[in-house]
Amino acid sequence: MTRAELTIAEVRLTPILVADPPLLNTQGVHQPYTPRLIIEVVTEGGATGLGETYGDTKYLDIAGPLAEMMRGRSVTDLNALPGLAAEVCGDSPAATAAGAVDVGGLRGVQTADKLRLSVLSGFEVACLDAWGRATGLPVHALLGGKVRDRVDYSAYLFYRWAEHPGGRGEPDDWAAATDPAGVVAQARRLADTYGFRSFKLKGGVYEPAEEIAAVRALAEEFPGQPLRLDPNGAWSVETSLKVADELEDVLEYLEDPASGTDRMAQVAARTEIPLATNMCVTTFDEIAEAFTRGAVQVVLSDHHYWGGLRNTRELAAICRTFGVGVSMHSNTHLGISLAAMTHVAATVPNLHHACDSHYPWQTEDVLTERLAFDGGAVAVTDTPGLGVELDRDRLAALHRRWLDDDGSQRDRDDAAAMRVAHPEWTAPAVPRW
Amino acid sequence: MTRAELTIAEVRLTPILVADPPLLNTQGVHQPYTPRLIIEVVTEGGATGLGETYGDTKYLDIAGPLAEMMRGRSVTDLNALPGLAAEVCGDSPAATAAGAVDVGGLRGVQTADKLRLSVLSGFEVACLDAWGRATGLPVHALLGGKVRDRVDYSAYLFYRWAEHPGGRGEPDDWAAATDPAGVVAQARRLADTYGFRSFKLKGGVYEPAEEIAAVRALAEEFPGQPLRLDPNGAWSVETSLKVADELEDVLEYLEDPASGTDRMAQVAARTEIPLATNMCVTTFDEIAEAFTRGAVQVVLSDHHYWGGLRNTRELAAICRTFGVGVSMHSNTHLGISLAAMTHVAATVPNLHHACDSHYPWQTEDVLTERLAFDGGAVAVTDTPGLGVELDRDRLAALHRRWLDDDGSQRDRDDAAAMRVAHPEWTAPAVPRW
Ligand SMILES: [Mg+2]
Ligand SMILES: [Mg+2]
Repeated sequence: MTRAELTIAEVRLTPILVADPPLLNTQGVHQPYTPRLIIEVVTEGGATGLGETYGDTKYLDIAGPLAEMMRGRSVTDLNALPGLAAEVCGDSPAATAAGAVDVGGLRGVQTADKLRLSVLSGFEVACLDAWGRATGLPVHALLGGKVRDRVDYSAYLFYRWAEHPGGRGEPDDWAAATDPAGVVAQARRLADTYGFRSFKLKGGVYEPAEEIAAVRALAEEFPGQPLRLDPNGAWSVETSLKVADELEDVLEYLEDPASGTDRMAQVAARTEIPLATNMCVTTFDEIAEAFTRGAVQVVLSDHHYWGGLRNTRELAAICRTFGVGVSMHSNTHLGISLAAMTHVAATVPNLHHACDSHYPWQTEDVLTERLAFDGGAVAVTDTPGLGVELDRDRLAALHRRWLDDDGSQRDRDDAAAMRVAHPEWTAPAVPRW
Repeated sequence: MTRAELTIAEVRLTPILVADPPLLNTQGVHQPYTPRLIIEVVTEGGATGLGETYGDTKYLDIAGPLAEMMRGRSVTDLNALPGLAAEVCGDSPAATAAGAVDVGGLRGVQTADKLRLSVLSGFEVACLDAWGRATGLPVHALLGGKVRDRVDYSAYLFYRWAEHPGGRGEPDDWAAATDPAGVVAQARRLADTYGFRSFKLKGGVYEPAEEIAAVRALAEEFPGQPLRLDPNGAWSVETSLKVADELEDVLEYLEDPASGTDRMAQVAARTEIPLATNMCVTTFDEIAEAFTRGAVQVVLSDHHYWGGLRNTRELAAICRTFGVGVSMHSNTHLGISLAAMTHVAATVPNLHHACDSHYPWQTEDVLTERLAFDGGAVAVTDTPGLGVELDRDRLAALHRRWLDDDGSQRDRDDAAAMRVAHPEWTAPAVPRW
C-alpha cells in the first residue's frame, strides 16, 4: 500500500429518516422517524469507510462544508478534524451562536462545541473504517487492539405506547409499557431474545413512586441482576435521595437523577449508590469540576458527542486516572454506530459496565446484515474496518423518506411529538419532581 | 498488505553502553558510559521497527521475557502490552519487591510500575515503527497525525566538568561549566550550534544563590527568552519560595524545586511562577492528588516512563482537561528516542513549551544519520515509521563495549560516579538546601 491510497477522494453524505418507536422520556416521546446522517469516506485506493451520526439540520449544516474540506486529506489525519470543524463552524450561524444551538435536551447543557464534536465523530469513524479496510485491520486494532472479545450491552427499557398517535410511523409488535407489569414484560422479552443480563429503565416519565415500583418489579423478576434508572435529571436533590434510599439495594447505579453538577454533587454526597451521567459530564470542559467535587462516579461515554472513538479512549483514561467508572450511553442509532461502539468498547480496559444501546428498538438499518446480540453481547469482529457492509437499496429508500418528509421529522423534537397526542404539552422545567 | 504480515516474527534486544559526559546533578555526576537497550521488532512481512529505552540490568531482566511473549502477536496489539509486562513482572523478583526497585533517583518515588512501563514503552515504539514501515505511514500518522511540522527543543544546560575523573570515558570538546560564566558560554554555544531559543539549567548542584546567579546571567545574555531551572527537588519549601521570588521575572517555569506533592503544593500556593515536574507526577496514579491540590502547573511528559507514545497522548489529554500545561522531559537518550519524542510531540495540540533533550550531549548514536536541530527544532518527518535507520556496525561496537564492561557501567549510578572523584560522597537527603 502506498500512502496516497489513503487520501480521501470523495465524501458522501446521506441524510436519512429511520423508524423510531414511541418511546417516552421526560421531555416527551420519540418521533415516528429520527434523522441520522450516513457518512461514506472513499479513498483514492478505493476503500469506502462508513460513519453515522445525528442527522438533524444543524448537524447537516456543518457536515457539508466539513466533507468538502476533507477531500484530499489522509484518512489517518484525525488530529486535524477538530481544527477543520472549528473552521467550518466559524462560518456557521448555528454553531457560533452557542446559546441558540439545541443539541437535544437529554444531553445536558447545549453548546456549539458539542454539536461540532458530534459531527466530526461520524467522520472520524468513517476514516477509521476506510483506513482499516485499506490495510486489512479491524478498527479496534487501529485503536491499539481489543482487550476483550465480546462487549456486553444492557437491555434499554422504555415506557412506551403501542403505537404513535394518529396512525403515524411504522408499526412494530411491541405492546405498550406504562406500568411495572408492562416494563417487566418488555424486559423479559428483551432478555429472552437477546440475552441481556442488565437492565436500564428510562425514567423521568411518571412520578417517582411509580418508577420505583417498576424497578422493584424488575428486581423481583431478575434477582441479583444489575439495574439502572435514568430520569434524565428530572428530580430535585431531595427526590433523588429518596429514590436512592428506596432502591439502594438493587441499583447498579442511578443515572442523572438531578440536573447539573451542583445538584449531582449534593446527591452524591449523601448516598452510597454510584451516580452515573451523560448529562452532567458531556464534554472535557465539564470534567474537572465534576470529578473534583465527586459529583459523578460513572461517566457514560458516547463517541458521538465526545468527538469520536479516540476521544472516547481519552475520556476513559481520564476516568481511570481519577477513579471514576466508565459505561456507555446511547441515543437512537443504527448498526454502523453499534459497530463503532463495540470496537472502541473492546479497547477500553476500564469499561466495567454493560453499554446502553437503542439498537433493539430500531427495526430499520442500512446494513446488508444486522449486528447480533448473543448472550447480551456483540462479538468483536476482526474483519477489516468496522466489519459492516452498506445496503445501498436500504440507504436509498431511507434517504427517499428524508427527501419526501414535510420537514416535521428532520429535526428531532420529542416535545413536539408529544403535542400530537397532548396539544398542551411543553417539556417540563427541572426539577420536575 | 495482509494482517499476517504485521505479526511479530522476532524481537532482538541489544544492550549497549554509550559515552556520556560528566554532567552534574544533585545526586552526583553522569558515569562515563550510560546503558541503553535497543529493541528491534521484526515482522513476518520483513519490516523492522526500532525502540530504545533504559538499559540497566533491571530493565533487561523484564525486556527478555517480554520479547519472548511478543513473538507471534501483531505489532498493532499495543493495548495488550501492559498485561504482558505485568505477567512478566509477576515472576520478576526485581519488580515485585517494589521497595527494592531503583528506577533512578531523579524520577521521583521508585516503583515496580514505572520500571515495567519504561520497558514496555521501548517495545511500543518499536511496534509503531514496524507498523508504520509496513504500511507506509509515519509514526505520527499512527497517532492520528501531526498538528505541527516542527517540534521545538530547549537547550539543556548542565554544570559539568571538562572530563571524567581518572581519564575514564570518551573525551569531548566542551569546557567545564561550574559558574555563571561557564553556564552562559555553554548556552551560547548550544544556541549558536542548534538554534535553541529556550534554556533549561539542571540545578541542585550548587547553593541556590550560585544557581540564581547563573540564571540571572542567562537572562542578561538572552533577554526575553524562556528560562527554566530544575534542582530535582533539592530545596525546602522556604528555599524554593526564595528562589521563585528572586527569579519570577525571568523564569518560564520552575521545575521540581521541592520533593513530593505536599511540598510542591505548598510552594505553588505561594508563588506565581508555574511549577513543572517530572518527579512529583510521574505516573497516572500520582495525577489526581497533585492536580486536585494544584501542586503542579506543567507536567513534563516522558514516553519512556509514562509507558509509550499513546500513554503520552493520554497524559496530555488529562493535562488539557485539567488546565495543566505539558512539556517534555529527557534522560540521556539516542536518536531513536528523539525521533519517537518528536513524532508524539507533533501530535499533541497542547504542547506549549519546548521539549527537553540530552541529545546534543550524546556524541555517539546507533543511527546511520543523526537527527538534526534546526532553529532549535526537529522537523517532523513523513518517512514511514520513525524515519531513522540503524547502523549495525555502530550498534555492534556499542554492544561490544557493554559486553566488555567490568559491570561498573551497566547500571547507572550517579552517586557512585561522583565517588570516583569524591570518595566520601553520598547522594544528599532532601531537602538539601
Ligand atoms: Mg442518560
Ligand atoms: Mg526534571
